[in-house]
Amino acid sequence: MSLSKNKIKVIQSLQRKKGRIQHGLFLAEGIKVVQELVASSFELHSLYVTEGHEHHFDAELVQLVTEDELKKISTFKTPSGVLALFRFARIQDLQLDGLVLALDTINDPGNLGTIIRLCDWFGVKQLLCSENTVDCYNSKVVQSTMGSLSRVQINYVDLEEVLQKIPTPKLVADLDGENLYQAALPKKGVLILGNESNGIGTELKKLKDRSLTIPRFGIETESLNVATAAAIILSEFRRNQ
Amino acid sequence: MSLSKNKIKVIQSLQRKKGRIQHGLFLAEGIKVVQELVASSFELHSLYVTEGHEHHFDAELVQLVTEDELKKISTFKTPSGVLALFRFARIQDLQLDGLVLALDTINDPGNLGTIIRLCDWFGVKQLLCSENTVDCYNSKVVQSTMGSLSRVQINYVDLEEVLQKIPTPKLVADLDGENLYQAALPKKGVLILGNESNGIGTELKKLKDRSLTIPRFGIETESLNVATAAAIILSEFRRNQ
Repeated sequence: MSLSKNKIKVIQSLQRKKGRIQHGLFLAEGIKVVQELVASSFELHSLYVTEGHEHHFDAELVQLVTEDELKKISTFKTPSGVLALFRFARIQDLQLDGLVLALDTINDPGNLGTIIRLCDWFGVKQLLCSENTVDCYNSKVVQSTMGSLSRVQINYVDLEEVLQKIPTPKLVADLDGENLYQAALPKKGVLILGNESNGIGTELKKLKDRSLTIPRFGIETESLNVATAAAIILSEFRRNQ
Repeated sequence: MSLSKNKIKVIQSLQRKKGRIQHGLFLAEGIKVVQELVASSFELHSLYVTEGHEHHFDAELVQLVTEDELKKISTFKTPSGVLALFRFARIQDLQLDGLVLALDTINDPGNLGTIIRLCDWFGVKQLLCSENTVDCYNSKVVQSTMGSLSRVQINYVDLEEVLQKIPTPKLVADLDGENLYQAALPKKGVLILGNESNGIGTELKKLKDRSLTIPRFGIETESLNVATAAAIILSEFRRNQ
C-alpha cells in the first residue's frame, strides 16, 4: 500500500489548526506516545509505520509506509517510524464540580502540555481554555502530554461568559494576593492562570473572588513560569485533602 | 566598525560547549535577557546591536553591526537586533549550607532553565549538576533563565564524590518514598533529582538518606516532568520556613 498524494496533503494539513478542525483529526508520533493514545479513549483513525515497527501494535491496526512517505507526513526532522491520526475527543458538557483550572491566553504549547499532565496528576478533571489559548491538538502539546490528553476534559470557551455563570469561588494567581501557604483553599472552585507575559485579562480579573501569591524567597526573581506556578498551586490545593 | 571573519568564527563556536569552554564565554540574545545580564554580576565581553537598538544600552558598551553580520552570529532564525557575549562566572567554593539542589543527568535545556529560575525564586543558592547534565551556558538555558543565571551558584561536579562528603541529609524524589505532604523536611539538606527518563543513577541512589514522593490524585498518570517535580518539592521545603 502506498499513500496517495491527496492523503499526504490531508495529513500535512493537520499540522495547522485549520486543517485539524476541518478534518476533526490530530497527529501523534513516536512509539510511546502513539501506544498510550491507542490505549486511551481517543479513537484511532490511521496508524502508519515503517518496516520494523509493526510489532509494537496489533497487526490489523497498522498500515506499512516507506521511509520516504513517512518523511512527507512527519513533523519530526528525523521521523520515528510511527505516526498516527486520532479523532478529536467528543465535546462534552462542562464538569464544573470540584476543582477546575481555567487558562487565559496561554501561548506556549510546552506550557499547555505540562499543565495538562499536572491536571491529570492532581485529579483536576476539567480544564477550561480561553478561545485564544494554544490548541490542545497542536502536535507539540500532544507529544508532551502523552496519555494525559485523554484523561483531562478540555473545553475552549468564552472564559468570561462561562466564569460568570460558575457559582464556586474564582481564584486568580498574581503577585499581590494572599500568601498561598496560609490561605484556606476551598475544595470547589476555579483557579484562573493568565498569559505568560501579561497575566490575566482585565475583564476576567473583575470576576475574581480571591487572589493567591506564591511567596518568593529570592530577592530579585521576576516571575515564575506559568506551568511552574500551576504545579505549586495545584499541589497546595491537594495537600490538605 | 565591522566584524572580522575570525571574530564571527569565534562567536559561532560559542553555540557549542567546546567553543564556550575554550573561550570562557557564552552568548545571550534579545533586549530583555541581555539587559538583565548586563545588570547582573556577569562580566560583559561584547555587545552587538543593529541600528535602532543602541538606545537600550549605555553608549560606551555598544558595538554597531549590520543586520547581515548579526544574522551570521545569531542563534535565532529571526535575530532580535541585540546579541551579547559574557564571561563565565568565576568558579566558587561550594555553598553547602542550607538547602542544596543536585541534578543527575538532566538533558533538556528547558528543564534546567526552569529549575535555575526555581532555585532563584525559592532562595536555593547552590545547584550541583552531574558532569553530564546539560551545560548551563547552553543558549537555550541562558534564554530561559534570564537574570536568574547570575543569582544561583551552579557547579558541575562528580556528584557521587561530592555528595559522599556532605554531612546534611540527602533526599531523593522517587515513586515509592514518604508522602511529601506528611514528611518532616529538614532545613538543611540536599534534594537530588534524576534524569527525565531514567531517574537517579544506581550508585547515587545508595547515598540517599530518605526518599520523597509527590502524592498522585489521578489514576493512570505516569510521571511528572522533572522541573514540575522540582517546583512542587521546593515549594514544600519552603512553606513551613
